[in-house]
Amino acid sequence: VSGAFTCAAGWSAMKPPASLAARASELTERLRARSPRVHCITNAVAEAFTANVLLAAGAIPSMTINPAEVPDFLRRADALLVNLGTLDEQRQSAIEAALGVAAQTTLPWVLDPVFVERSQQRLDLAKRLIARGPAIIRANAAELGALMGREVNGDSLPAFAGSHRTVVALTGAVDRVSDGASSIAVSNGHALMARVTAMGCAASALMAAYRAVANDPLDAAGACLVHVGVAAEAAGATARGPGSFVPAYLDALDNVTPDEILARARVD
Amino acid sequence: VSGAFTCAAGWSAMKPPASLAARASELTERLRARSPRVHCITNAVAEAFTANVLLAAGAIPSMTINPAEVPDFLRRADALLVNLGTLDEQRQSAIEAALGVAAQTTLPWVLDPVFVERSQQRLDLAKRLIARGPAIIRANAAELGALMGREVNGDSLPAFAGSHRTVVALTGAVDRVSDGASSIAVSNGHALMARVTAMGCAASALMAAYRAVANDPLDAAGACLVHVGVAAEAAGATARGPGSFVPAYLDALDNVTPDEILARARVD
Amino acid sequence: VSGAFTCAAGWSAMKPPASLAARASELTERLRARSPRVHCITNAVAEAFTANVLLAAGAIPSMTINPAEVPDFLRRADALLVNLGTLDEQRQSAIEAALGVAAQTTLPWVLDPVFVERSQQRLDLAKRLIARGPAIIRANAAELGALMGREVNGDSLPAFAGSHRTVVALTGAVDRVSDGASSIAVSNGHALMARVTAMGCAASALMAAYRAVANDPLDAAGACLVHVGVAAEAAGATARGPGSFVPAYLDALDNVTPDEILARARVD
Repeated sequence: VSGAFTCAAGWSAMKPPASLAARASELTERLRARSPRVHCITNAVAEAFTANVLLAAGAIPSMTINPAEVPDFLRRADALLVNLGTLDEQRQSAIEAALGVAAQTTLPWVLDPVFVERSQQRLDLAKRLIARGPAIIRANAAELGALMGREVNGDSLPAFAGSHRTVVALTGAVDRVSDGASSIAVSNGHALMARVTAMGCAASALMAAYRAVANDPLDAAGACLVHVGVAAEAAGATARGPGSFVPAYLDALDNVTPDEILARARVD
Repeated sequence: VSGAFTCAAGWSAMKPPASLAARASELTERLRARSPRVHCITNAVAEAFTANVLLAAGAIPSMTINPAEVPDFLRRADALLVNLGTLDEQRQSAIEAALGVAAQTTLPWVLDPVFVERSQQRLDLAKRLIARGPAIIRANAAELGALMGREVNGDSLPAFAGSHRTVVALTGAVDRVSDGASSIAVSNGHALMARVTAMGCAASALMAAYRAVANDPLDAAGACLVHVGVAAEAAGATARGPGSFVPAYLDALDNVTPDEILARARVD
Repeated sequence: VSGAFTCAAGWSAMKPPASLAARASELTERLRARSPRVHCITNAVAEAFTANVLLAAGAIPSMTINPAEVPDFLRRADALLVNLGTLDEQRQSAIEAALGVAAQTTLPWVLDPVFVERSQQRLDLAKRLIARGPAIIRANAAELGALMGREVNGDSLPAFAGSHRTVVALTGAVDRVSDGASSIAVSNGHALMARVTAMGCAASALMAAYRAVANDPLDAAGACLVHVGVAAEAAGATARGPGSFVPAYLDALDNVTPDEILARARVD
């Protein structure tokens, strides 16, 4: 995968990979320059780490889930994350309040349907939320399979994205992103990402920050996954396990240069 | 203590220590191979660290406290943790929902009665929960003293465990575990454990993971405390304070080999 | 600023700086010796880090926000933190319960009015709380400006503190503390503090711990900011980014000696 242009297994690459790497590099720089504000309605386990990931990458987090305050916070936000982990009544009300403001202000939002394969109630909610127009859905294969009601592959992913007029970012050993018309694959990343809680949740929040500074949500999702994956590779090279991986990852999110993004991006 | 068989101060050692070290080593390996799912109803302070401890040791955490979702999560879990820290109405309902499922499915669960000595309401709840049959109670001396209504010592601990038909794991400078008939002492550990929040809470969650892969809850509790203590010793040897202790501890939970568990276990 | 006595820009320095450095050094030592108990009603993002900051500095945290339990916990606490981040109904009830006990027992408390500039509801609550007599208010310039309804400067800060009979600690590149009559400036700190979530929230909690061991709340606030700032400088000297800064900061809170506090304090 490393560097070569491939178009295998049904994953089309209508945008040339060199171009995405260049755009990812540029977007990482732009995110640091603009410091977008991202309001996160996310689960209790992920809150602190998500805030630190956003800060390390150059964005500004806010995290309140009080429905009465969410509208005030959203009016000064550049993007929104809706994450369904540790879902409770207050978070459900906060999501409702937030999507009301987002619909009025065309604020872009990212949906992270955590663990929808484990709870029917959560799956039902996720489907209703998808009908309300997230810019991007970021999920793993189990979650996306539950949402799609079928196996996730190179045909079903673009079909699902296209029919719901959204971008779907499927993360795993290789990340797949599609807006229905175009699809990209990002091979960056490290095995230790699966040994730390909230890595995916925090990446979804960062994807919202990228969406705030990118015109194209497909670019935003791809650039975010390159940034995250390159940082994870740098961290994995020095970490002695899942504990030391975390500070090294945050350091790398901050330290990685646009040139390094460009050189190390493995995209198809 | 290191290596010598002792039977002092009322702590009986009916199972020979070499045997427990060998079983601890084997159980650590089995836990990594089987990756048990542990659902945690735990306090807000401990949630992220607990998830990371479980992941580092090889288990799979889920953490929702929404009572409506808890049953769905429990049906795919191998063990349950009930931790009473930052107790609120939602968590109390979640505990009720979880124990309902646990009773039907004979899912083993561990009770961590955090701070029962500081709140009468919490003490009353803990006593009601103990009547519902936890596999293991993990507590410190202040908490256990409040539960027992008397001083904790080598006579009262086995008596309490036996009369409640449970295993009690009393953690401290030396950990004491009893099922009423047999008792063991684990001397592994490091002073920095007391300088980091949620170390005990996370150990209780890991104890639930060990319970899922062990036949005997006394073995589960003992093996968990050996794993935790050996990892803490490895972390303490390189940490420069309570901050660097945390990533080093998580690394060590992951890195420690079964042979190292066997060689370093200090059990009586 | 480093070492020289200055009195510029309206910041009076009625207490000589050498004296504050000496008192800061002494208070850091006293805090470690007395291990004050600090009950924290704080936001979800900050809870774990705040507990670890308190433990690293030598204090003992408790964090429950269940209104029914707060009074029991407060009766054994030496100081209270009220932080308005991620404010919800439960936290509002907990604050009410806590301030009821604090008023009866003259327990000192610190107010951290997080993000009051982002939410009118939160601003209104903060104003009502200030009328109930916090020992110290710890805020940044945006928050304090919202509370004061005017620009924060060397005249308005002491006036605000004096008229509300409290100590105000304004944190930023240079920290300013005033009780109305006397004002001090603390120049210690590091730029990475702004790249990690909850650094300010945790400093407010530590300020409550200092208040528990100091007679003068101005001394408590100043000593806390020196401790925090000197630790941040030590951490910043070795950190490779915002990730490795966190464990290094906690290590330094624990490791810094009273002599180092005395030598490195930059106070006017």
